[in-house]
Amino acid sequence: MAKGEEVSNKQVLLREHVHGALKETHMVYSTSTTHLEVPQGSKAILVKNIYLACDPYARSLMTYIQPGMAIPGYGVAKVLDSDYPDFKEGDFVWGVTTWEEYSLIKEPESMFKIHNTDVPLSYYTGILGMPGLTAYVGFFELCSPKKGDYVFVSSASGGVGQIVGQFAKLMGCYVVGSAGSDDKVELLKNKFGFDEAFNYKKEQDLDAALKRYFPNGIDIYFENVGGKMLDAVLLNMSLHGHIATCGMISQYNLEQPEGVHNLMNLITKRIRMEGFVVSDYYHLYPKFVDFTLQYIKEGKVVYVEDITEGIESGPSALIRLFAGHVVGKPVIRVSHE
Amino acid sequence: MAKGEEVSNKQVLLREHVHGALKETHMVYSTSTTHLEVPQGSKAILVKNIYLACDPYARSLMTYIQPGMAIPGYGVAKVLDSDYPDFKEGDFVWGVTTWEEYSLIKEPESMFKIHNTDVPLSYYTGILGMPGLTAYVGFFELCSPKKGDYVFVSSASGGVGQIVGQFAKLMGCYVVGSAGSDDKVELLKNKFGFDEAFNYKKEQDLDAALKRYFPNGIDIYFENVGGKMLDAVLLNMSLHGHIATCGMISQYNLEQPEGVHNLMNLITKRIRMEGFVVSDYYHLYPKFVDFTLQYIKEGKVVYVEDITEGIESGPSALIRLFAGHVVGKPVIRVSHE
Repeated sequence: MAKGEEVSNKQVLLREHVHGALKETHMVYSTSTTHLEVPQGSKAILVKNIYLACDPYARSLMTYIQPGMAIPGYGVAKVLDSDYPDFKEGDFVWGVTTWEEYSLIKEPESMFKIHNTDVPLSYYTGILGMPGLTAYVGFFELCSPKKGDYVFVSSASGGVGQIVGQFAKLMGCYVVGSAGSDDKVELLKNKFGFDEAFNYKKEQDLDAALKRYFPNGIDIYFENVGGKMLDAVLLNMSLHGHIATCGMISQYNLEQPEGVHNLMNLITKRIRMEGFVVSDYYHLYPKFVDFTLQYIKEGKVVYVEDITEGIESGPSALIRLFAGHVVGKPVIRVSHE
Repeated sequence: MAKGEEVSNKQVLLREHVHGALKETHMVYSTSTTHLEVPQGSKAILVKNIYLACDPYARSLMTYIQPGMAIPGYGVAKVLDSDYPDFKEGDFVWGVTTWEEYSLIKEPESMFKIHNTDVPLSYYTGILGMPGLTAYVGFFELCSPKKGDYVFVSSASGGVGQIVGQFAKLMGCYVVGSAGSDDKVELLKNKFGFDEAFNYKKEQDLDAALKRYFPNGIDIYFENVGGKMLDAVLLNMSLHGHIATCGMISQYNLEQPEGVHNLMNLITKRIRMEGFVVSDYYHLYPKFVDFTLQYIKEGKVVYVEDITEGIESGPSALIRLFAGHVVGKPVIRVSHE
């Protein structure tokens, strides 16, 4: 590929706005052509996408973006041309790109340059990218963890949950995770070092399950799912507990979100519940990446991905994520470096 | 009355546990006799009750206490006999007493001595007592108010709400309150100095009402009611807003609390929602009382009570509170000082 060349560009476009359950037919696979050059004076960058993350985040944007547009989402990419001073040709970057082979990124100030390439580049869609920083911020900044705290993580084998659990273990906490299959439960216990884990689909009564694992209550709940699980957790929080929430995956595919009935427990248990959006904490990224890289290199934090080949597999991978059929963080490999 | 005398003691007892709607028949008016003397070595105090507060708090205890017992609740009392070193005969105290003429208080360490008697003693059931401290803590300690913030107070004419609104005005905030009658709305605007107020019972659509009063969003919500109002508020919060909650009066009389559907807004708006119980902040009472007394004496903070004569009127006063038929803080006068 030479700069200025016209190339074919495989894409996944939004066919129509998504309300209610996400279906594969909401997305359409297509091919267009792209001119491999950034317009002069545009401050944009043109990148070749290498990895795209299958995030609940991508789903949540599908309610808002214009049909016909390539789906936006986090990814890792290589800069092919740049009119933005911070990035030059050949740099690797991560941030919000689009589901296609080549993306013109008009606001490159939101992208992060990748300085450490001695770990798999795909990690920057996960443990060293947005989900990792989400885990770090939600756990360390919002939940004020202390050694010995009882920590519960829902959707615990996902991109954020697996990291929260490992951070909590590093802090000397007791950690229990919930997930939606026995395979995931095995992974939590045997790979990520959770003290306990359970398959929420096999529990008749989530309140009873939590009472079994937390007879003394939950000090910290890292909330990823919302709805019924949140209601059961509220019944089992300890006094002065913390709930950090950055997503409620169980709710995204519902026309009307489920009602949460047990909020009175916020008062009786003096609970602080706080929502956050990771982009408000991007200034912590350098600190986070130093912290996490060290533990990855020492083997004290591990990471599991489910890598699918080819951008055309994106829609089905996203559907499988919401169906709970993915173990580890789902990533689409768009091209080889 | 002489120490050691046997006197008749009018009481309001719990007849049966309350689940669902509170009815007057859950309580029973009765007369017993009391020996006006504290058992030696008991560390208790014996008091003559002067004022009893009609608080939502009294209702919430009725689910737990033993039938046949006098209903517990906040009040102002005069010490008749004491085996507790901090209080002596003749002292005025406030704290949790029981709905009867004479109470033996076995844990007097939870009572506060009244030092300033140049304001109405009944104020210590309200603006200078638990509701006032609740308003102070919830607003100043939990909500981080700044000049110019947009503040919404529900149940705004109640014992806590009217004080929150006035504290917010002292801080230079823009304050809107909701209440359940036109009389209360008038009081909020003309007596307590709220910038705006509305009768929520006359609004078809609470979301639309809040959008009318807060076109730029709500920075601080002092939550007293829960349920549908909370759901509407969640749709109208500003980024990084604060919600402090110490009660959800709309929920106490329901068998099953209403579901709250819009919690996803905690994430998108980065909201901190925190429950609290005022007794965790009793150490702030001296600071609070100095602060508030000064404003009362300068006439910058006013206070409205609805005083009913006689302990026998307690049950009906509590029913009227939940029915929304009380303007200002309801207080029962048990005896004259």
